[in-house]
Amino acid sequence: MASEAESSKYQYESLKVALVPNHIIHVEINRPEKRNAMNKAFWREMVLCFQAISEDASCRAVVISGAGKMFTSGIDLFDLGSDFLQQQEDDPARIAWNIRKKISDYQETFSVIEKCTKPVIAAVHSACIGGGVDLISACDIRYCTQDAWFQVKEVDLGLAADVGTLQRLPKVIGSRSLVNELAFTARKMMSEEAKTCGLVSRVFPDKASLLSAAFELASEIASKSPVAVQGTKVNLVYARDHSVQESLDYMATWNMSMLQSQDLLKSAQAAMEKKTPKDVVFSKL
Amino acid sequence: MASEAESSKYQYESLKVALVPNHIIHVEINRPEKRNAMNKAFWREMVLCFQAISEDASCRAVVISGAGKMFTSGIDLFDLGSDFLQQQEDDPARIAWNIRKKISDYQETFSVIEKCTKPVIAAVHSACIGGGVDLISACDIRYCTQDAWFQVKEVDLGLAADVGTLQRLPKVIGSRSLVNELAFTARKMMSEEAKTCGLVSRVFPDKASLLSAAFELASEIASKSPVAVQGTKVNLVYARDHSVQESLDYMATWNMSMLQSQDLLKSAQAAMEKKTPKDVVFSKL
Amino acid sequence: MASEAESSKYQYESLKVALVPNHIIHVEINRPEKRNAMNKAFWREMVLCFQAISEDASCRAVVISGAGKMFTSGIDLFDLGSDFLQQQEDDPARIAWNIRKKISDYQETFSVIEKCTKPVIAAVHSACIGGGVDLISACDIRYCTQDAWFQVKEVDLGLAADVGTLQRLPKVIGSRSLVNELAFTARKMMSEEAKTCGLVSRVFPDKASLLSAAFELASEIASKSPVAVQGTKVNLVYARDHSVQESLDYMATWNMSMLQSQDLLKSAQAAMEKKTPKDVVFSKL
Amino acid sequence: MASEAESSKYQYESLKVALVPNHIIHVEINRPEKRNAMNKAFWREMVLCFQAISEDASCRAVVISGAGKMFTSGIDLFDLGSDFLQQQEDDPARIAWNIRKKISDYQETFSVIEKCTKPVIAAVHSACIGGGVDLISACDIRYCTQDAWFQVKEVDLGLAADVGTLQRLPKVIGSRSLVNELAFTARKMMSEEAKTCGLVSRVFPDKASLLSAAFELASEIASKSPVAVQGTKVNLVYARDHSVQESLDYMATWNMSMLQSQDLLKSAQAAMEKKTPKDVVFSKL
Amino acid sequence: MASEAESSKYQYESLKVALVPNHIIHVEINRPEKRNAMNKAFWREMVLCFQAISEDASCRAVVISGAGKMFTSGIDLFDLGSDFLQQQEDDPARIAWNIRKKISDYQETFSVIEKCTKPVIAAVHSACIGGGVDLISACDIRYCTQDAWFQVKEVDLGLAADVGTLQRLPKVIGSRSLVNELAFTARKMMSEEAKTCGLVSRVFPDKASLLSAAFELASEIASKSPVAVQGTKVNLVYARDHSVQESLDYMATWNMSMLQSQDLLKSAQAAMEKKTPKDVVFSKL
Amino acid sequence: MASEAESSKYQYESLKVALVPNHIIHVEINRPEKRNAMNKAFWREMVLCFQAISEDASCRAVVISGAGKMFTSGIDLFDLGSDFLQQQEDDPARIAWNIRKKISDYQETFSVIEKCTKPVIAAVHSACIGGGVDLISACDIRYCTQDAWFQVKEVDLGLAADVGTLQRLPKVIGSRSLVNELAFTARKMMSEEAKTCGLVSRVFPDKASLLSAAFELASEIASKSPVAVQGTKVNLVYARDHSVQESLDYMATWNMSMLQSQDLLKSAQAAMEKKTPKDVVFSKL
Repeated sequence: MASEAESSKYQYESLKVALVPNHIIHVEINRPEKRNAMNKAFWREMVLCFQAISEDASCRAVVISGAGKMFTSGIDLFDLGSDFLQQQEDDPARIAWNIRKKISDYQETFSVIEKCTKPVIAAVHSACIGGGVDLISACDIRYCTQDAWFQVKEVDLGLAADVGTLQRLPKVIGSRSLVNELAFTARKMMSEEAKTCGLVSRVFPDKASLLSAAFELASEIASKSPVAVQGTKVNLVYARDHSVQESLDYMATWNMSMLQSQDLLKSAQAAMEKKTPKDVVFSKL
Repeated sequence: MASEAESSKYQYESLKVALVPNHIIHVEINRPEKRNAMNKAFWREMVLCFQAISEDASCRAVVISGAGKMFTSGIDLFDLGSDFLQQQEDDPARIAWNIRKKISDYQETFSVIEKCTKPVIAAVHSACIGGGVDLISACDIRYCTQDAWFQVKEVDLGLAADVGTLQRLPKVIGSRSLVNELAFTARKMMSEEAKTCGLVSRVFPDKASLLSAAFELASEIASKSPVAVQGTKVNLVYARDHSVQESLDYMATWNMSMLQSQDLLKSAQAAMEKKTPKDVVFSKL
Repeated sequence: MASEAESSKYQYESLKVALVPNHIIHVEINRPEKRNAMNKAFWREMVLCFQAISEDASCRAVVISGAGKMFTSGIDLFDLGSDFLQQQEDDPARIAWNIRKKISDYQETFSVIEKCTKPVIAAVHSACIGGGVDLISACDIRYCTQDAWFQVKEVDLGLAADVGTLQRLPKVIGSRSLVNELAFTARKMMSEEAKTCGLVSRVFPDKASLLSAAFELASEIASKSPVAVQGTKVNLVYARDHSVQESLDYMATWNMSMLQSQDLLKSAQAAMEKKTPKDVVFSKL
Repeated sequence: MASEAESSKYQYESLKVALVPNHIIHVEINRPEKRNAMNKAFWREMVLCFQAISEDASCRAVVISGAGKMFTSGIDLFDLGSDFLQQQEDDPARIAWNIRKKISDYQETFSVIEKCTKPVIAAVHSACIGGGVDLISACDIRYCTQDAWFQVKEVDLGLAADVGTLQRLPKVIGSRSLVNELAFTARKMMSEEAKTCGLVSRVFPDKASLLSAAFELASEIASKSPVAVQGTKVNLVYARDHSVQESLDYMATWNMSMLQSQDLLKSAQAAMEKKTPKDVVFSKL
Repeated sequence: MASEAESSKYQYESLKVALVPNHIIHVEINRPEKRNAMNKAFWREMVLCFQAISEDASCRAVVISGAGKMFTSGIDLFDLGSDFLQQQEDDPARIAWNIRKKISDYQETFSVIEKCTKPVIAAVHSACIGGGVDLISACDIRYCTQDAWFQVKEVDLGLAADVGTLQRLPKVIGSRSLVNELAFTARKMMSEEAKTCGLVSRVFPDKASLLSAAFELASEIASKSPVAVQGTKVNLVYARDHSVQESLDYMATWNMSMLQSQDLLKSAQAAMEKKTPKDVVFSKL
Repeated sequence: MASEAESSKYQYESLKVALVPNHIIHVEINRPEKRNAMNKAFWREMVLCFQAISEDASCRAVVISGAGKMFTSGIDLFDLGSDFLQQQEDDPARIAWNIRKKISDYQETFSVIEKCTKPVIAAVHSACIGGGVDLISACDIRYCTQDAWFQVKEVDLGLAADVGTLQRLPKVIGSRSLVNELAFTARKMMSEEAKTCGLVSRVFPDKASLLSAAFELASEIASKSPVAVQGTKVNLVYARDHSVQESLDYMATWNMSMLQSQDLLKSAQAAMEKKTPKDVVFSKL
């Protein structure tokens, strides 16, 4: 379905990136032999990858999934543990200073997904543990397979989840009682509960049908005006963090330029001619 | 069920307003021959109508529905398109300036529903498209028929929805994954999914039973102390946009006068006498 | 299951407090002959009780339930009514000043639950009315029995709910339409609907199985690192009231000391040895 | 210096409005025989007047001053007192409800100055009392005469100033100690102190030189690109109420259209030709 | 000038409290032999003292000064150092947990001044060092003697000032460049500079004239309606921390009850009879 | 006074960086032949330079000044104009999209100064125009020469200043009337007025004495505990953008690790031995 990316800019150690027809990019966490554990390369390359996608005018939607048998087992303790567990400093304040920098860097790894204005669809199969939940909480839409399960694992490692789950998950699903329970107990949540609580929009029988549906969704989104879609993402993220009144003001200020787009004319004309956006060619963005 | 409003203040071109017994006002979008498309008159008259309702001390609850075969097909492109598509200015900055003013005006069309302190119940049947979703997101309670469907249509017109949907919908329903999907794809959501995700509270077999239930609900609300009900609305809207601590402070400041109401005494006495609010006559508000 | 608290610090008139093995405290609203109505003693003692729990390094989780036949019938009108209904002042401004102080005090009764960094599980059976909803909205996780029902009763008393329901409930459950309906109509919500809308996480056949499950959950939580669990609570509450970016920043600042904890080392080592937190002894917090 | 406004839209009872050459409007509080006391007409007409100015594309700057012997003696107690002092309702909650509406309306009287995107210069001579301070706090720049004095009068009338002074004055001048003292004591502040503390930018010997300088300043401002000047006002007001990061984001979103203005090209070209904005003709805004 | 407080509630070790005629309370930091260094008793008693003042309906204004030769030398390192310097725990996370609690407690020591609705005037002579600046930053008005000097001392002790200076000082004085310089260098600021930058409102030749003026000011404030004065303080503090629009909304909600005060009638009548608030007897608050 | 930086990491085209003894870095805008106009290299290199300084544990304070005859003439229109004035796209929405990205990048050029936790002192001589004011508004302390002048130039170029001045300047100086006047008129402000209004802390006769004093100040700051100084900067910036209560909470969370620093012990011991921080050797940070 996807051809290897010709562009040299998408070459990574921990990620496999493919350019899919119709303006879609497929990002795979690509350490299947290590259960897609998030090692140092991953934390660094995610930032590079999504910054590149942000700048890539030919991309209009992104699908992120895991290579091999599971989505991800979360943080790679063997590769990363040393960062946090062994401290060469002996002053707790200076150790703290360095830890804070590292956490901030790690947080950026998932915040780039949110800062990227192209919609990002997470397609989860099998395990999605710890850092995996941080990751998908920063995505825009979540699909999963029937065998998928989710685990906010951090308390079992003796820490509060600090790269996004505690901050984003309560704004992603509707039941606070459930969010708290997941975060306090580190229990597994199966796909069915994930669907009921709204974490994922749809559940599929297997990985193949999951990916197929995720690409179909991405394709649908990519057929629309990128000015419309990406402006929608920017303003949805903004609205999450501001009052309704502030968000309306921002929206009006945003659209005072965006409504001058040719996409509006093209789309309106298509609508009047009973066509759909798919019949329209939109310029790159 | 409803008699025509005698009062001349509720005469509009695009809206039909009826005063229903027991302090209820029924607002109908009234362009059935145009599928209740939102034309210039509508955008202007909604503001006038809800400002009048806000000032109307004999009104305690509002039901809004659509005349004819559907709730609304959304913005009337033929009537309004010219506003945005044809610009007489040739300076993009000055065009932008004018667009921003218009968007702000249009936003007000639905914000008045929220600013009106009387609870507003949306009763939706058949199609609720584009601007229709902006409208109902600003209402307090949503009921619909089994054949109802909802569509965040704007991306298909080449723009990000800018009169309320992106700002309010994510705070109305619990699943962010779903909100994003609806906004990015413009796909239809049927009544069942609308119920599951919490957009509507109840689903009814047909328009008659829908309206009947909506008026019953309005009647129930209108039987309570208006000081209690409207203070509840003011503080629910406030709480959505502020931290819990700020909202508690505002609430205490609000109730320092409102708890001096005679309604409190009347209600407490009724409660002790095993009566309900329906047995109490509350003064106008 | 629980032994009486030996410590004299947990002796109250309206509450019965028991220290349960494995770092759990059980708080019972203890006026069964008055349907656990919240009298003056209750409003005062809840603050004392939860402040003591906050300081109690041997406590890691709290279960709150009602003694006797129901969870709580809410505010005790006979005991408290006089505070609000009879005013000795004759200046409305000075009456207002005093009312505001009282409301602030009453709000603190439930805010202490939130300020307490130990997770608090509400176990609700039968009726949970008025102030009861304010109370459980401030808890972290909610379980209930099949016969449980919930009622935002305040409008029936002629006032807007002012000690937490309007402020916290919309952030606890996903459907705003439902929250509004409950608050405007004071209608009862049964356990099934409470489960569907996310107010409670699980429903149990009877009080015995409810309490058993609540203590099991508390025990599970109490087996984890208290540094991890309580840091999680602090940051979940913070995230509710701030933007994602602010919450990430706070989280990083929080964890710059907390990641220096021995609990992290102990937990990581256990994880590598395929053990669980239950095999680890954590110091008090 | 100023010719009477030909336009019928600027005819008011309490205000005298003149269109001054070079895109300037002069608004005078015009009840000199009543010491420019703010009566009902004033509170209503200020809103109408500044809404009209906002829409008036030929206006680029506003000067506001007082006719006759003083700037203003503040609220007209005889005309307005009845609104607040005599209440026909006998329910304190309903009285409160009405008072809140009136205060909100009165607040709008000065907020319109801030919402108007054209810079507003207050030129104060002699007394500026009570509501006068509320008014000038909402203006952008303040000049005064040597004999000018300012008085936050409200505590002497038994109330906290509620139409803008307490909200805006602390953000207008630098010393909080001084703001508090003025508000708690209602003492007079003379022009010299007003200059030192930054309330006014400049002090002039008499009313004639004051007005002359105010018009010169207005003229200077009006010679610049209105896109630049009014965008500056919008963003300065925004920045006062938001964090630096939020304000930068808003600014970037604002300028993405405004930097497409022809004014930029015209101004840049003038700059390269060593000309000033006065040599450029800018389109209306 | 002041008689000893008869009331037993104002008996403290580190503070000397006197009830001054006309509703004024004089609080003296009373460890002159220790240069008024802030010891454990001080941090605890300030909270008790100002909570008592808050509840004291006969008090309308507070003056705080230092007994003996200087205002205060700041934190008492010998008494308090042990709290922070010697830690019995050996887990940095648990040490951190305890430190945070202590800092929060110490912050409350000065926040009570702000929460107390009665205006608090700081009268500073000679040295005001470290914690002294935290203290006066939380007061409403600051006066000092010519020989007074101020020092943000904390960096010299190896820490960032954490009980209020960094949070409040930049909102108290107008020049950020100066605030930063003071905080980074710990240099002394003399009375003249303190006056110029707005930290203090007035400078007096010696302690006697300072106190005399402070009491005169307090007396002036105490002669006004307490409803007006204390409502003013509440709203000034609120406005510092919120946007103008939010503050206006809060103000309107506040005054909907407060404008029903008899003080308004009494004051208005006095004004019409050309009397001053001093001729009016206001009820306690 | 300063030796050339040996480190290759500080080699730039538009900036000259010198490592000054005692942990100070001197950054000079280094295009004297172009009046230090800000060209493309400058906007890019400032970010690189301050990111490097942020990571440089041997640096504790920064002085920024201009090489040659003036501080800076602001943006280099010839080098940058093309970015904004010539647009190859013909869709106003896509042009807008690109402009917004560029503005965001340019804003970062000065935001890095604020994000850098080391104090930054601006030493301004002669002209500081346009972008120069944006730059110094993001610095912590400002000194200048007697012949220095400041100009918010942007309105003369037909745009609202969008890289920091409108956002930061009103929070830097105390008089809003003055800020507005400067921004609306683009008039020059001389050093004396800059001192009076608080923009600069001190004025010096010439560039030599200015730099000498700036380095002395930097040296003073660099002699203190870097944990104390940089924690102070982080919290001062935080406090500017948050409420006092939020800032106190953040501060307590910050210091729960930072008070475990050895610097505290070293500083306290020095204080008890009547030594100053200059007698103490602090570890790098």
